[in-house]
Amino acid sequence: MVQSWDSGIVHHLREVDALMKESIQSRSPELTEICEHILGAGGKRMRPGICILSYLAAGGDDPKDIIRVASSFELIHSATLIHDDINDQSELRRGSIAAHKLYSVPKAIIAGDFLFVQGFRLGGSQDEAVVQSIAGASAAMAESEFIQSDYEHRPKADEEVYRAIIEGKTARPIEAGARVGAYLAGADPEWIDALGDYAMQLGMAFQIADDILEGEEERTGKRSGIDIVEGKPTLPIIYAMEDPQHGPRIQEIFQNRDASDADVREALELIKKTNSLERCRNRAQELIDKGKGRLFELPSSEHRDSLAILADYVLARER
Amino acid sequence: MVQSWDSGIVHHLREVDALMKESIQSRSPELTEICEHILGAGGKRMRPGICILSYLAAGGDDPKDIIRVASSFELIHSATLIHDDINDQSELRRGSIAAHKLYSVPKAIIAGDFLFVQGFRLGGSQDEAVVQSIAGASAAMAESEFIQSDYEHRPKADEEVYRAIIEGKTARPIEAGARVGAYLAGADPEWIDALGDYAMQLGMAFQIADDILEGEEERTGKRSGIDIVEGKPTLPIIYAMEDPQHGPRIQEIFQNRDASDADVREALELIKKTNSLERCRNRAQELIDKGKGRLFELPSSEHRDSLAILADYVLARER
Repeated sequence: MVQSWDSGIVHHLREVDALMKESIQSRSPELTEICEHILGAGGKRMRPGICILSYLAAGGDDPKDIIRVASSFELIHSATLIHDDINDQSELRRGSIAAHKLYSVPKAIIAGDFLFVQGFRLGGSQDEAVVQSIAGASAAMAESEFIQSDYEHRPKADEEVYRAIIEGKTARPIEAGARVGAYLAGADPEWIDALGDYAMQLGMAFQIADDILEGEEERTGKRSGIDIVEGKPTLPIIYAMEDPQHGPRIQEIFQNRDASDADVREALELIKKTNSLERCRNRAQELIDKGKGRLFELPSSEHRDSLAILADYVLARER
Repeated sequence: MVQSWDSGIVHHLREVDALMKESIQSRSPELTEICEHILGAGGKRMRPGICILSYLAAGGDDPKDIIRVASSFELIHSATLIHDDINDQSELRRGSIAAHKLYSVPKAIIAGDFLFVQGFRLGGSQDEAVVQSIAGASAAMAESEFIQSDYEHRPKADEEVYRAIIEGKTARPIEAGARVGAYLAGADPEWIDALGDYAMQLGMAFQIADDILEGEEERTGKRSGIDIVEGKPTLPIIYAMEDPQHGPRIQEIFQNRDASDADVREALELIKKTNSLERCRNRAQELIDKGKGRLFELPSSEHRDSLAILADYVLARER
């Protein structure tokens, strides 16, 4: 089976793009330009893809509403990207110059707000359950950023803490998209739960893969070792700090708020000498396997298989 | 008639406060704390007040939904305050330390996002027209910030440009609150238009009063002359630049992106020597009179009179 995950919904993803483009039109050409910059920065539209595929796999056959909901989730996601790049002082986003660098911090803050508004506008035309789902997932993202900050530069985060953080930061919005997709298709609670759990596992695996990639600037367009600089306890760092030989030195650098560039490079090298990255990849693979397993609770269909391919793609990114 | 504008709705404004407090509960105590900081910073709840009074003046008698909508508008307004303070580099907000100074810029950005989300969550439980109204007004705020930035340090803004900017930035969200209030009361289009226009005039007058006050740090908790520093073409500055004697020097300072503190103080002194502030006050009074005039299209009631008192209060603030 040589097929990409999006081959069955290319036309729907184009509708998502068109609707998002329509949504960011404004009285200010510059505001629209910043929004286009972030929307056009080469995202794979994985989030709207999961939303739409869940709808179709659950038997939905009138995709008008789900296109709006998928666009809503992607606009809100784009808003958080702009604000995250300011907060992380990222210079690049997917290889392009970050919005706050190309324009200014104030303009990037307002453009993010505008994307939030337009995202909620699209989602707000749906029924109460959908609105609550979108808002709940968005609120969880903000909460998780705060919870993460409680652990910065402090070696007390374990895998459970990390799990809770990435669940809110990354996985819940993806889960919410899948659940809303199944819900709008009129699916029974069992199917909604199966698709929601599939997306939750995939979202966590996706974030672990992202945190593994983070050390490689040329591939992510981000500053190498930024999580160490910022003291963010990602799984690769948590596992590496457990290493009997190199763990203590990695911990020392991680806790040091004034770590030099040489320190950060040293930590990145030491992490590679531990079994941390292998453990992380295994952890991500377990999550993907668990998520894919839930798909068998749905009837066989092209769209169900696309979701399985998408799950594998999440990990293939980094190999 | 010795009465304050809120005396008839004190209990409803308490319900708004309670609902907003409930809405900002989160898994992160610090996130909730920042939100409480901005909500508790002594706002007069004028926006929810106009929303609720419009509902009651238009004959509404079951205020449950309007309490939610009023809280939605106020949460969204609070979100913009946090983000504006970052963008304006304000140290203070209504005499308290600004959130980004007390916590950090990243935390303030995320807290603002969280308030946006919770605001939309409350508003999103209403029908499509209400959601569109809240989103439309919120989008206009972002657009106007961008349009304003096109005129920074450039003496080409006239009163029409200023009007368009403050309409989007300040007046439209207030107008939307009044319109939604009348709409939820089941009012005819004539009453909705009358209350909407009342609120639009009041909102513009409010912003003019704010721009007059801006030179007086001790009263607003903001840095004195910040609009000149940032090159924002407010009405007091626009009028003052028209002055035959002092206008050219004020223009020179306004256009200078590197104006010194002494320059800014000079400009503030020169503005007071022109008839600009008097013209601004007259302009604001005209708007208030026009807005109050529209109230007579509604039947006589205690709540209609409260709206008239509120209009006068907007200007009395600065005398």
